Amino acid sequence: MDLFNKCYAYELADKYKEMGLYPYFHALETKQDIEVVMEGKRRIMIGSNNYLGLTGDQRIIDAGVEAIKNFGSGVSGSRFLNGTLTIHLQLENELAEFLNKEACMTFSTGYQTNLGIISAIAGRNDLIFCDRENHASIYDGARLSFAKMVRYKHNDMEDLEKRLAEANPETGKLIVTDGVFSMTGDICNLPEIVRLAKKYGARVMVDDAHGLGVLGKSGRGTAEYFGLEDEVDIIMGTFSKSLASLGGYMVADTKVVDYVRHKSRPFIFCAAITPANARTALEALRILKAEPQRPKRLLEVADYVRKSLINKGLKIIDHSIVPIIPIYTYTVLRTMVACKILYERGVYVNPVVPPATPEGECLIRTSYTSTHTFKLMDEAVEIIADVLNNLPEDEEELLKVLENEK
Amino acid sequence: MDLFNKCYAYELADKYKEMGLYPYFHALETKQDIEVVMEGKRRIMIGSNNYLGLTGDQRIIDAGVEAIKNFGSGVSGSRFLNGTLTIHLQLENELAEFLNKEACMTFSTGYQTNLGIISAIAGRNDLIFCDRENHASIYDGARLSFAKMVRYKHNDMEDLEKRLAEANPETGKLIVTDGVFSMTGDICNLPEIVRLAKKYGARVMVDDAHGLGVLGKSGRGTAEYFGLEDEVDIIMGTFSKSLASLGGYMVADTKVVDYVRHKSRPFIFCAAITPANARTALEALRILKAEPQRPKRLLEVADYVRKSLINKGLKIIDHSIVPIIPIYTYTVLRTMVACKILYERGVYVNPVVPPATPEGECLIRTSYTSTHTFKLMDEAVEIIADVLNNLPEDEEELLKVLENEK
Repeated sequence: MDLFNKCYAYELADKYKEMGLYPYFHALETKQDIEVVMEGKRRIMIGSNNYLGLTGDQRIIDAGVEAIKNFGSGVSGSRFLNGTLTIHLQLENELAEFLNKEACMTFSTGYQTNLGIISAIAGRNDLIFCDRENHASIYDGARLSFAKMVRYKHNDMEDLEKRLAEANPETGKLIVTDGVFSMTGDICNLPEIVRLAKKYGARVMVDDAHGLGVLGKSGRGTAEYFGLEDEVDIIMGTFSKSLASLGGYMVADTKVVDYVRHKSRPFIFCAAITPANARTALEALRILKAEPQRPKRLLEVADYVRKSLINKGLKIIDHSIVPIIPIYTYTVLRTMVACKILYERGVYVNPVVPPATPEGECLIRTSYTSTHTFKLMDEAVEIIADVLNNLPEDEEELLKVLENEK
Repeated sequence: MDLFNKCYAYELADKYKEMGLYPYFHALETKQDIEVVMEGKRRIMIGSNNYLGLTGDQRIIDAGVEAIKNFGSGVSGSRFLNGTLTIHLQLENELAEFLNKEACMTFSTGYQTNLGIISAIAGRNDLIFCDRENHASIYDGARLSFAKMVRYKHNDMEDLEKRLAEANPETGKLIVTDGVFSMTGDICNLPEIVRLAKKYGARVMVDDAHGLGVLGKSGRGTAEYFGLEDEVDIIMGTFSKSLASLGGYMVADTKVVDYVRHKSRPFIFCAAITPANARTALEALRILKAEPQRPKRLLEVADYVRKSLINKGLKIIDHSIVPIIPIYTYTVLRTMVACKILYERGVYVNPVVPPATPEGECLIRTSYTSTHTFKLMDEAVEIIADVLNNLPEDEEELLKVLENEK
């Protein structure tokens, strides 16, 4: 059989393209910001992870420009060998200090950070306890490790305890959880996770990709929010959300970071973060430290939009305070049609369909930025309400609505 | 048992640090270039993958600066969703055209490129035939896929044929090979691999991380070198070597790329390449196209150094024409001491010790850049010969030599 048969048989993308509904890979022609030009038209951006609105901040751009001029476009090698820059060390030192941990190491992407930590720290005889709704990179990291994966029901502490109690007490255990879950905006039940970890001798790792710059008085994330920074063993986060760049980090005790630094294949066998990416992440970190009003304002924007959407009669997932607000669209076709019409009317949102959701529980995921103005949010909510509240249930009617938009 | 016991027990790095021999993470204080300042001192750099010497090229720096200014520091999202820039599309179009394939897609690191392609294209019932000396990212990609891995002896076409012949003819088959092997500089036997692939109905993927910009009249890599571009199904490469940035690409037929684009978790669940990284890679590609004398000059430098090292009586791996020249140092201690003394005397090279080599076959890996001058290479070879030709066999004597250097 030809290995490529699966490629020739794949038709879903073409089908959506033919229907005029394909929602992916719309190209930006301007900076990522609260309003962008995408494919020739202005769109209100409520579908990025640019939580602090820093990707276009002049201080960060200036820092990136200086880094390219002084350190060049790339380092042509692994951090381990010829690819470490003084900027990398500075970034790691300042992150460790900000997050109140002994040590920090950085990786070239956020995805690779989870792969790099989990595959190094969890060995053949260890167990990884993983929330069912954790990010894909946690699953892939567990798969790359030789440890056994034990899934527990999403944020269900009874289920987690049951599985911990069943496990061999002589086995090394790691509980991994998203701090903030990226699709629903749920916050993990960290106090209970920490209590169970102590009871059953497990270590705790929090993926704070969507927590850093979002939660906590200083924006230090989920552990700060719960006052549990000393109780979480490993915190990871990314540079591609609040920190306006690309990459990721791990903070933990020195011995743990040092071990991962020498054992992690996704770290060792990868070229280092470029000078511009390292320096812009560092500058964003410094701005976050200096301007704690940014995360505060971000939650105010989220609260404002959440209330506005509910006032307009929209059905949202309303568990949380974070700037991720999913709105129910239920069926795949309604979701695709909604995204398409919103895009045409100048609002960029993301569709969430199976396997990312159960059948019949499709969503559009909206996400917010601390620099979003209430005025701009009023405009976006108005359009969303107008589109979603007038979206028919029936498939044929839906396609007619789509036709009328053209 | 505590999951972290393995971290507390790890002592190797500390041991080398105490002995003053630790060879990793030396920090650059200047651009990656043919000469650098590392930890306060000038070092001749013969340990990077900066094959075309472009990381400090003014045209590339200018292009990166413009990209940051116009498109910001990052895109805060996946290529799949809100993170595609017009620059990404341009880069992909120009790569596909240069490499004579229908389509191209890019990934945020080279490591992730192999993970992203292999895990998507090889499914549960497929077989991956993998050269034993392939890069770690190919192994990790195969592990992340659900396919079965079949290893064959390094560059041993009889062994590959035996394993292909043993395999179920009804199974999808992928042969994956490095174009240029990163540690030894060996070039794969592509004509024979292509012949066997046809005979047994397998697809061929070449990792050309160390081939692009190095081999072929136009620097298009291993397939161009053998005149077999039409016969290789998938070519991947990276931006962190000849192309002076960070990231990677896949070129193949449209249907194959389109499938990977919609199925690859390391692609979908990762933030996109930043504006600066995409734009600098694009500029480097344009320079490679415009200046084919760069790869030509690179092989001349490699030839010059290879002959010089042999003339000085050094034992090198001498299979190849590429700018990777490994020099035997045999034992781990001799390797570490050699690297340390070379570093002190101003030459940066990389140690290669088990598990990357068999016991007793340790190497120092040296690698070259098209902008290296013969004069600078004379200086480096002189120092290498002086150090290695005077390195005692005996362990105690070795440590005395080290002491005298201080």
